[in-house]
Amino acid sequence: MGKTLVYPKRDSNTVNRYKHRATYDLGAIHSIINSSQVLHVSFNPGPSDPFPAILPMIGQMASFDYPSASIDEPLDCYLHGYVSSRIMNLARASEDEGLPVCVAASKVDGLVLSLTPNSHSYNYRSAILHGYAKLVTDEAEKLWAMELITNSVLPDRWKHSRIPPDKAEMSSTVILKVRIVDGSGKIRDGGVSDERKDTDNTEVTERVWTGVVPVYETFGEPIPSVSNKVEEIPGYITSYVAKTNEKNRDYATTAVGITLPKEEQH
Amino acid sequence: MGKTLVYPKRDSNTVNRYKHRATYDLGAIHSIINSSQVLHVSFNPGPSDPFPAILPMIGQMASFDYPSASIDEPLDCYLHGYVSSRIMNLARASEDEGLPVCVAASKVDGLVLSLTPNSHSYNYRSAILHGYAKLVTDEAEKLWAMELITNSVLPDRWKHSRIPPDKAEMSSTVILKVRIVDGSGKIRDGGVSDERKDTDNTEVTERVWTGVVPVYETFGEPIPSVSNKVEEIPGYITSYVAKTNEKNRDYATTAVGITLPKEEQH
Repeated sequence: MGKTLVYPKRDSNTVNRYKHRATYDLGAIHSIINSSQVLHVSFNPGPSDPFPAILPMIGQMASFDYPSASIDEPLDCYLHGYVSSRIMNLARASEDEGLPVCVAASKVDGLVLSLTPNSHSYNYRSAILHGYAKLVTDEAEKLWAMELITNSVLPDRWKHSRIPPDKAEMSSTVILKVRIVDGSGKIRDGGVSDERKDTDNTEVTERVWTGVVPVYETFGEPIPSVSNKVEEIPGYITSYVAKTNEKNRDYATTAVGITLPKEEQH
Repeated sequence: MGKTLVYPKRDSNTVNRYKHRATYDLGAIHSIINSSQVLHVSFNPGPSDPFPAILPMIGQMASFDYPSASIDEPLDCYLHGYVSSRIMNLARASEDEGLPVCVAASKVDGLVLSLTPNSHSYNYRSAILHGYAKLVTDEAEKLWAMELITNSVLPDRWKHSRIPPDKAEMSSTVILKVRIVDGSGKIRDGGVSDERKDTDNTEVTERVWTGVVPVYETFGEPIPSVSNKVEEIPGYITSYVAKTNEKNRDYATTAVGITLPKEEQH
């Protein structure tokens, strides 16, 4: 474990509740971000607005400077957006380091149904990152990030679509690059955990069903558009759909089976 | 439509991109929030931290003062949390109106695969709310909100578990009540939408498969805990699992079939 890279613990990213579920491991955090279809990105619109804003965005962690960097190495977060959106305008206007943002991703893996509401929980994986966002101005890096993000939605889609983007398409799309300062993750798996005051009470245990309902995201059968001219659904789509469905179902089910020592659960 | 209640448009909640997808309708926004298993809640930790924070939380919109209020009427957002978490400490310490927060919920309903990456999209539903968060101090309101939130995870679970919570359980749980100031939602459904420059290009249309891959959340078979003593999985669980699976699958599939006028798509 000596070589595992971890994010530094600062006030802003240190997990204080259920610490045993926390991770600062780059690989674990980046994996949660990269397998999420939507990221929630928070920023402050300006001094006249008391409320932070949240925008759902598509993004990926990767390194343009070190393209061979693996998931557990330092990476940047690339976010896809529209040229005149508020977050892009703020990032464009930001000086020095860039716009301070928080990036979050969360997945629910199961409903954990215990004897008493207080012991109910989710199996879940969540991650947050803090960093400074700037617009990508280098055209090669921008094109690379656009391909990265398209292929995160569906692997190999980029090369199977009409590329490269034309001039109008390139200028209407903006890529935000977040230089990460810190991050943390939280993972809960396992079964139910109840306290002795309830497990010793037969009136309760004979009446209340306990267990886990697995939760996972599913892809349905691809539905061709009315204008589609390609007769068969291509293999890179059908195989990704099948593989992801199996992986998601397996994760949610297997997560229940991992038995943590009693005192670490719930 | 004269009676539909809408949130006021302010700078902080007005949708500027794809305006035709925007909604300010209370019913639409509250429905997205209430059918989401996880909400992302953003707040500012304090003047010494440049980054907004995001916390995944469980919550529901409802009215304690007007319990018969329907989903399209003014409601408060109740969020469940732990007594000493940072957001609870900030809300406890906040004066006057409460802690300014942003609450967000997003669901992906489909991958929209068009001819060119620039026209790719998701079918999705997203909502944000801005408001001021305060701790619920009235014990009756707190207990009511705990039941509300438990039953949002699984309808009727509260009464089928060991209730009421004891003194220690009541004091370790904190409920945050957000008084909503504004909100907005965004909904994208329908099929692919491409520009004439691509649909007229047979080299592209004969090569690129276009269509929608539906995406929906699925519940797996409930897995009893090792200590479970109730032989059969109760009907309120199996029927909710079956009904929700059907509803989620139907929504994602039906969403593809809604055909918007050409110029409103993408």
